[in-house]
Amino acid sequence: MDNLLGEFFGTMVLLVFGCGVCACNTLTKSKGQNGGWICITAGWGFAVMLGVLTATTLGAPQGDLNPAVTLGKTMIGIYTVPQFFATSFVQILGGICGAAIVWLAYLPHWAETEDQAAKLGIFCTAPAIRNYPVNFLCEGIATFFLMFIIWMIFSKQVGVIPVGLGPYIVGVLIWALGLSLGGPTGYAINPARDLGPRIAHAILPIAGKGGSDWSYAWVPVVAPLVGAFVAYVVFVAIL
Amino acid sequence: MDNLLGEFFGTMVLLVFGCGVCACNTLTKSKGQNGGWICITAGWGFAVMLGVLTATTLGAPQGDLNPAVTLGKTMIGIYTVPQFFATSFVQILGGICGAAIVWLAYLPHWAETEDQAAKLGIFCTAPAIRNYPVNFLCEGIATFFLMFIIWMIFSKQVGVIPVGLGPYIVGVLIWALGLSLGGPTGYAINPARDLGPRIAHAILPIAGKGGSDWSYAWVPVVAPLVGAFVAYVVFVAIL
Amino acid sequence: MDNLLGEFFGTMVLLVFGCGVCACNTLTKSKGQNGGWICITAGWGFAVMLGVLTATTLGAPQGDLNPAVTLGKTMIGIYTVPQFFATSFVQILGGICGAAIVWLAYLPHWAETEDQAAKLGIFCTAPAIRNYPVNFLCEGIATFFLMFIIWMIFSKQVGVIPVGLGPYIVGVLIWALGLSLGGPTGYAINPARDLGPRIAHAILPIAGKGGSDWSYAWVPVVAPLVGAFVAYVVFVAIL
Amino acid sequence: MDNLLGEFFGTMVLLVFGCGVCACNTLTKSKGQNGGWICITAGWGFAVMLGVLTATTLGAPQGDLNPAVTLGKTMIGIYTVPQFFATSFVQILGGICGAAIVWLAYLPHWAETEDQAAKLGIFCTAPAIRNYPVNFLCEGIATFFLMFIIWMIFSKQVGVIPVGLGPYIVGVLIWALGLSLGGPTGYAINPARDLGPRIAHAILPIAGKGGSDWSYAWVPVVAPLVGAFVAYVVFVAIL
Repeated sequence: MDNLLGEFFGTMVLLVFGCGVCACNTLTKSKGQNGGWICITAGWGFAVMLGVLTATTLGAPQGDLNPAVTLGKTMIGIYTVPQFFATSFVQILGGICGAAIVWLAYLPHWAETEDQAAKLGIFCTAPAIRNYPVNFLCEGIATFFLMFIIWMIFSKQVGVIPVGLGPYIVGVLIWALGLSLGGPTGYAINPARDLGPRIAHAILPIAGKGGSDWSYAWVPVVAPLVGAFVAYVVFVAIL
Repeated sequence: MDNLLGEFFGTMVLLVFGCGVCACNTLTKSKGQNGGWICITAGWGFAVMLGVLTATTLGAPQGDLNPAVTLGKTMIGIYTVPQFFATSFVQILGGICGAAIVWLAYLPHWAETEDQAAKLGIFCTAPAIRNYPVNFLCEGIATFFLMFIIWMIFSKQVGVIPVGLGPYIVGVLIWALGLSLGGPTGYAINPARDLGPRIAHAILPIAGKGGSDWSYAWVPVVAPLVGAFVAYVVFVAIL
Repeated sequence: MDNLLGEFFGTMVLLVFGCGVCACNTLTKSKGQNGGWICITAGWGFAVMLGVLTATTLGAPQGDLNPAVTLGKTMIGIYTVPQFFATSFVQILGGICGAAIVWLAYLPHWAETEDQAAKLGIFCTAPAIRNYPVNFLCEGIATFFLMFIIWMIFSKQVGVIPVGLGPYIVGVLIWALGLSLGGPTGYAINPARDLGPRIAHAILPIAGKGGSDWSYAWVPVVAPLVGAFVAYVVFVAIL
Repeated sequence: MDNLLGEFFGTMVLLVFGCGVCACNTLTKSKGQNGGWICITAGWGFAVMLGVLTATTLGAPQGDLNPAVTLGKTMIGIYTVPQFFATSFVQILGGICGAAIVWLAYLPHWAETEDQAAKLGIFCTAPAIRNYPVNFLCEGIATFFLMFIIWMIFSKQVGVIPVGLGPYIVGVLIWALGLSLGGPTGYAINPARDLGPRIAHAILPIAGKGGSDWSYAWVPVVAPLVGAFVAYVVFVAIL
C-alpha cells in the first residue's frame, strides 16, 4: 500500500511540474510564454526528479512513476504481474490528478488561448509529423534509451552513485532525452504521463477545448512498453 | 538572535539576487535584457540557494527566508508563535534591504526605462490576468507544492540527502516551481519576498516610478500562508 | 573485451544524444527546432556524461569514447599501441551506430528539411569559415583544453572528486567547451564523434542528402590527436 | 612558486573559457552567435569552476584567480602583502595569455566582425550606461556579494561542503552574479579578468580593432578591491 501511495503522489507531482511547464510555455499571457525548448526540457527533468523524490519518501522504494519502467522491473522480478497492473493504475490516476491541478493553477488562461491543439499539447503528446509506424519507432527508441541507461545507472553500480543522488541523475537523463530525442513526438516515454493527462483533458471543463486525439493515444502507451521490453532483452544479452 | 541575524541576511541575499535577475532581464540597456524565462527562473533558484547558504552559515539553522515556510515549521513546533512573528518581521526587513541594494546597483537604468509596471515588476509580483480568487488559488497551489516537497526532502530522509547539499536541492525546487507554476502570477510563494520589496518600491526615490499596486499586495502574503497550512494538513494526513 | 564492449556502447550512447540534439535543433518541424546554443551545448554535455556512465558500467573503466583521450592515456601507459587502435576502432563503430539510430528516430523529418548542409551538420562538424590551417588550430586548442583539464581532474586529485561524480564533471567540461570554444568549428574534439557519424551519413539512405564533405574530414580527426599530444607534453613539463 | 604556477594557469583557463564564451556569442559567423545571456552567464560560471579546479590541482590551494579575492584573504593573514602583489601579477599575466588563446581560436572571425566595441567587449567589460561613480558602485556591490558569500561558504562551514565540491559551488555563485548583477557593467568583479585581457587587446594584432578604452580601465580594477575590502569589514562586524 505504501508503494501505491508513493507512486500515486510521485506521479501527481511529476505531472504538476510536467504539464505545468508546458502550460507556462504555451498559454496566452503566461509570464513564461515562449520560454523555449530549454525551459520545457529542464522543467520535465526537474519534474521527474521531484516526483521520484516524493515517491521514494512516501514509501515507494522504486519511484518508477512510469508503467514502462515498472514493466522492466517486473521482468527481473521486482514486481509480480498483479503488482505491475496495480502500480500502473495508480500512476495513471496520479497523472490525471496532476494534470487537473495544472488546469486549476492556470484557470483564467485557458479561455484566453484560442489554439485547441496547443491546449491539448499541454496535457499529452502529439507527433510533429503524424505517421503511426515512425512515431511508434521514435517513442520506442527514446524509451529504450531511458530504460537502457537506467539499467546502467542502477544495476551494476549500486554503491557507486553517491547515496541520495539517484533522483538527480534520473532527472538529468530525462532532460537529456528531451533535448536529443524529443523532437519528433514530444517524448512521452511513459504511458501514465500521456494517458493520465489525456483522460483529464477529456473529462475537465477546459474553456474552449477541442478533441482529445484518441486515435494517437495508443502510440505513447504501447511504444514505451515495447521499448522497455527490448531494453531488457538487450541488457540481458550484453551481460 | 543568531537565528534572526541569519534570516535577515539570508533574505537580503535572496532579494539581491532575485530582484537583481528581474532588473537584469527588464531594464532598458541592461546587458541581460530579454534574457528570457530560463534566466529568471534559474536566477531565483540560485537566489534561494545562496540565501539559504548565508542564513545557515550565520546561525539560522532552518534558513527559511519565507514566512510561509516558517509557519509550516511553527505548526510542528520548531518555532513558537512569537518566534514566528519575529522571524517573519526580519525576513521582510531583509527583503526591503535586498531590493534597495538592487535599486542602487542598477541606478542609472531606472530613468531609462519608461514602463512603470515593468519597474514595479522588478520588486514584486503582479498577476498576468487580474482576478483575485484565481490568483489566490494559483499562489496557494504553488506554495502548497513548495512546502509539500520540502516536507518530502527534509522530514523522512534526514541522512539520505548528502550532507551540505540541502541548499542546492531547495534551489532546484524553486527553479522548477518557476518553470512550471510561475506563469499566472510570477510565483511569489513567499510573503517576505513580495511585501519587503513592495515596501522598498514605495519608499525609495526610484526614477519615474508609478504606484506600488497595494490592492494586490494581500494575495502574495495570505495565499502562501494558506498554501503552507494546507500542505501541513495533507502531509500529516498522508503519514 | 569488456573494455571494447563498453567503449562501443558508450560511444553509441554519446552519438545518440549528441547527433540527437543537433537533429532536434535543426530539422524542419522538430518540436525543439531553433532551441538555440544553450540546448546544443547542454545536450552534448549530457551526451558525454551518459556515454561515460554507460561505458564504465559495461566494463570500460576509462570511459574515453574518444581516440584523442585514448591517445593521451596511451602515452602514460594505460593502453598499449594495439589497444589504442582497437579502442579507437570500436569508438568509431559506436559512432556510426549512434548516428544511425538518430536517423531512425527522426525518420520523417529528413525529407521535410531542404538544406543539405544542415542535414550533414547533424552528423558531423563543418567550419563556420573554411580555412584548414585555422580550423585545425581551433580544433587543436579546444582538444588541448579538454585533455589538459581531464589531466587536472583525474591525475592528482584522485580521491578528491566525490566518488561516482567523474562522469558529471566531464559532462560539465564538455558543456563549457561548447559554450566557449565551439563557435568556429562546432567542437568535434573527438575523431570518433566526427568520423563515425560522417561514415553513417555517407552510407545511410537519408532523404535528400548531399555530399559528406570528405575534404574537411581529416581536420577533426588529426587536430584532436595533435591537441591531446601537446596537452600531454605541457602537462608533463609543468609537473 | 607552486602557488604562482597554479594561479597563472588557473587564471589562464578562466579567461580561455570566459573570453571564449563572449567571442562565441558575439563574433560574426560564430556557430554560437546570439546564444544569449544564459550562455554567457553559464559560460563564465563554468570558466571559474574549471579555473579553480586547475589552480588547486597545480598547487595553488586557494585558487583565487582574482586579486580582489586575494586581497580579502590577505586581510585575514592567508597571504603577506608581497605575496598579494606577486599573486595578482601572475593572475593578470594568466589573463593576458588566456585572452590571446581565444584570439587564436577565433582567428578568422575578427576580420568578419565590424563592430569595434563588440570586439573589445570580448576582452574586457564596458558599462551599459557610462557614468563612473555609479559604474564603480555597481562593480563594488557585485564584488561585495562575491566576497561576502565566499566568506559564508568557506569560513564557518569547512567540512559541511562535500569534499571536492568547492569549485562547483563557486561556479554557481559566479553564474548567479552574472544573471542578477551583471546588467549594468558586465560584472568584471575581478581586476585580473578585466585588465589582463584589456592588455591583450592592446598588444595583439586583432583585425580591425579599435581603442582599448583605457579611460574606463580603472573602474573594474579599483571597485572590486574596494568591494572585497568592505565585505571583509562587514563580515568581521557581523561575527
